[in-house]
Amino acid sequence: MKTAIVQTNPVFSEVKLNIQNALEMMESVNADLYVLPELFNTGYNFIDGKELTCLAETSSGFTVKEMSVFAKRKSCYVVFGFAEQTEKIYNSSAIVGPGGLIGVYHKVHLFYREHLFFAEGNLGFPVFDLPIGKIGMMICFDWIYPEAARTLTLKGAQLIAHPSNLVLPYCPDAMVTRCLENRIFTATVNRVGCEDRGGIDLKFIGKSEIVSPRGEILTRLGDNEPGITVIDIDLSAADNKLATEYNHLLNGRKPSQYRLPHNNM
Amino acid sequence: MKTAIVQTNPVFSEVKLNIQNALEMMESVNADLYVLPELFNTGYNFIDGKELTCLAETSSGFTVKEMSVFAKRKSCYVVFGFAEQTEKIYNSSAIVGPGGLIGVYHKVHLFYREHLFFAEGNLGFPVFDLPIGKIGMMICFDWIYPEAARTLTLKGAQLIAHPSNLVLPYCPDAMVTRCLENRIFTATVNRVGCEDRGGIDLKFIGKSEIVSPRGEILTRLGDNEPGITVIDIDLSAADNKLATEYNHLLNGRKPSQYRLPHNNM
Repeated sequence: MKTAIVQTNPVFSEVKLNIQNALEMMESVNADLYVLPELFNTGYNFIDGKELTCLAETSSGFTVKEMSVFAKRKSCYVVFGFAEQTEKIYNSSAIVGPGGLIGVYHKVHLFYREHLFFAEGNLGFPVFDLPIGKIGMMICFDWIYPEAARTLTLKGAQLIAHPSNLVLPYCPDAMVTRCLENRIFTATVNRVGCEDRGGIDLKFIGKSEIVSPRGEILTRLGDNEPGITVIDIDLSAADNKLATEYNHLLNGRKPSQYRLPHNNM
Repeated sequence: MKTAIVQTNPVFSEVKLNIQNALEMMESVNADLYVLPELFNTGYNFIDGKELTCLAETSSGFTVKEMSVFAKRKSCYVVFGFAEQTEKIYNSSAIVGPGGLIGVYHKVHLFYREHLFFAEGNLGFPVFDLPIGKIGMMICFDWIYPEAARTLTLKGAQLIAHPSNLVLPYCPDAMVTRCLENRIFTATVNRVGCEDRGGIDLKFIGKSEIVSPRGEILTRLGDNEPGITVIDIDLSAADNKLATEYNHLLNGRKPSQYRLPHNNM
């Protein structure tokens, strides 16, 4: 399954330009699955909820349509982040395929000032059983909660598509641990560049990567430039949960031993 | 709180020698807490249950007594691994202090052939509220289950003492993730050397280390030689769970979103 990670440098609020730039990069390779950054169409650093409201789209809006046209024409799947207008506004990722929108995920673990503008995710961590494999999604800061990747793994995900806008340095190396403990593939796709808006100056760290169930970093992009790379991976490798012949990593979980005094786990 | 990691090279079945060698190293430094490897007194690579039965001790046996004498004389605490004879035999770690035995932990996630000889841990993950701080224990392969360190963190542990006999290469780097996601200290103490017994040839990887709640490797020993090092750490740093002013890492958990179809999380 050819997986492309598409590391872009969005310009804040320039939705058409950002989509066009991403599509140009995506046209340059052939893949079964393309993964783009969090909020790749709008940029990240909203000053207030008003700005966010202006840039949010529904799941039948312009961005989903454009990505669906690409997916149909190339007979492929695309995962990308966008600000989703429903009754509330979520920091979402969507997966689209040749038939259009397949599903969305609403970011559960919001980061920093996202708490001011976005609603907390309410859809859990869905896994989509597609012709290319079982794909789950998480977004950026979800990485720091082991419960996120664990939940997706227990639901059968073979690959976690992980649109991100990372500003802290820790995630790229930590994804090795996430893959080892769950024996899954991850495709963490970050952006590069800076956004200095409203007195908040953010620099995004790039380093988009694909990591294997054995914790191998199969590819990692640089920290400053946009870029795209394609890796051919065999998702069935994620079905082997044996660390040793005696250690099936999921069956070896012992929930009865993880109990807390007030059962708040 | 001065924490010593004591990386030894036990000789299989030579309990008195192994204890004597460890005590000599421990005498060479002053610390509030000494952490030793898993099964530091017996060695690791049991051929069968009969061997294990011969070398297992109760929690009032020779090894616990020897360590308690040291702890009393130096007014300190010691965490060490040993094969514990109860109605079953557990791969245990004990914590002793100036007043003797404080508690034991029974390894929950057994590794490889340990499944043939040891009973699975049945005490959960206890945390001990001591004058030096709140100390939890896990043993070796427990590292690969994020639920282990998470449970200890949710129970209030500031430092996880982590006696180990690591043979796979992944744990030392993965402990950075464990510390970041939980904002705790860990003291992973491994052994060095080889044990080639009954056709099973094991090489232990050393790299004992102390990692901070910010994921800094404060000290890491080599991979071939015994060694001891002391680091002075402020355990209160583990009480700050804020990744940003908006992100308390424990309060930010969203158990309702981690639900599984059959509630088997």
